[in-house]
Amino acid sequence: MNSKFIVIEGLEGAGKTTARDAVVSELRRHGINDIVFTREPGGTPLAEKLRELIKQGINDEPITAQAELLMLYAARVQLVENVIKPALARGAWVVGDRHDLSSQAYQGGGREMDSGLMHSLKQAVLGDFSPDLTLYLDVTPEIGLQRARARGALDRIEQESLNFFIRTRERYLELAAADSRIKTVDATQPLDQVTASLRQTLDQWLQEQR
Amino acid sequence: MNSKFIVIEGLEGAGKTTARDAVVSELRRHGINDIVFTREPGGTPLAEKLRELIKQGINDEPITAQAELLMLYAARVQLVENVIKPALARGAWVVGDRHDLSSQAYQGGGREMDSGLMHSLKQAVLGDFSPDLTLYLDVTPEIGLQRARARGALDRIEQESLNFFIRTRERYLELAAADSRIKTVDATQPLDQVTASLRQTLDQWLQEQR
Repeated sequence: MNSKFIVIEGLEGAGKTTARDAVVSELRRHGINDIVFTREPGGTPLAEKLRELIKQGINDEPITAQAELLMLYAARVQLVENVIKPALARGAWVVGDRHDLSSQAYQGGGREMDSGLMHSLKQAVLGDFSPDLTLYLDVTPEIGLQRARARGALDRIEQESLNFFIRTRERYLELAAADSRIKTVDATQPLDQVTASLRQTLDQWLQEQR
Repeated sequence: MNSKFIVIEGLEGAGKTTARDAVVSELRRHGINDIVFTREPGGTPLAEKLRELIKQGINDEPITAQAELLMLYAARVQLVENVIKPALARGAWVVGDRHDLSSQAYQGGGREMDSGLMHSLKQAVLGDFSPDLTLYLDVTPEIGLQRARARGALDRIEQESLNFFIRTRERYLELAAADSRIKTVDATQPLDQVTASLRQTLDQWLQEQR
């Protein structure tokens, strides 16, 4: 099987970290051991600097929605060109914690950024590069934020209003419904059932790829 | 007279710093004393962080042309929204060392970035906001780079090829020819003549604004 790019997506508290472990264990069960992990924004020295600026801000300076979006895409192009594409080219699999779908959902949906701009940026940064499989962990914002709060202080994005996350989730669901390469997993279930669903979805997809 | 946004533009070594002093002295002669200085990229805490990343890079990571462009516009929107517009609104004049014309010339001309993307970014970040006057100091890349080298080590952008700067200058000249709010000053002249031309151009423009 050729190397693949698999992305895990979802709101804060959807369980992406646990999901990553389940994905890795399922890939290993299928004999896939050369796996590169990425997270977005981040994953290169420059992209990690941008991540820090996006998440924490600096000196209480208000960050405009446009600057946030542009920094996210700057980080993304660095990661894709310097890490993801080279890894896939040498035959490694790449498992990503978030990718472009997050920007579509959070900035396009949550922040209601202009769709023409979103399209131009995606085209300029990604062209026709896209994940082979996206596992979208669907939770309500209420459940997700409750889990996120339980694990500690919220960052700049996590402090957004409930309506922001409602719009974000709606956009996730719309985009997932329109693209067969995005598989939705119900992440409001108890954790062991989420993991079981995820492994089953991935196992089936892997069998289809052979 | 209403407050105005005046920008100084040109290649490395065109003499922008000397020009700034001349502009300020000319504005003061006209009774304008409340002046805010900006430089791009930079001018806010976040924009200065981005400037540092753009100019110096980090850990020898190659910076893609797209990431550079997006970081420049992220810095620009922060400066425009958090500094330039508020200054103009309270009645101050703003004198900028570089603004959007630099991106049009360096990234659009020098790096030959896609014009559709350039247009989308400009529209998203600036809308119809633009300088009242741009003073473009025109030098050949040969003269400009010689002067830049004489003052010390070159940064990441200054290390580009001669052809890059030839394309950049060509784009500057094209855009200046097409826009009456951009005044071109021959900056290959001896310094005192450049300053005299600049003061004369600015003086005439200020008189036309009354």
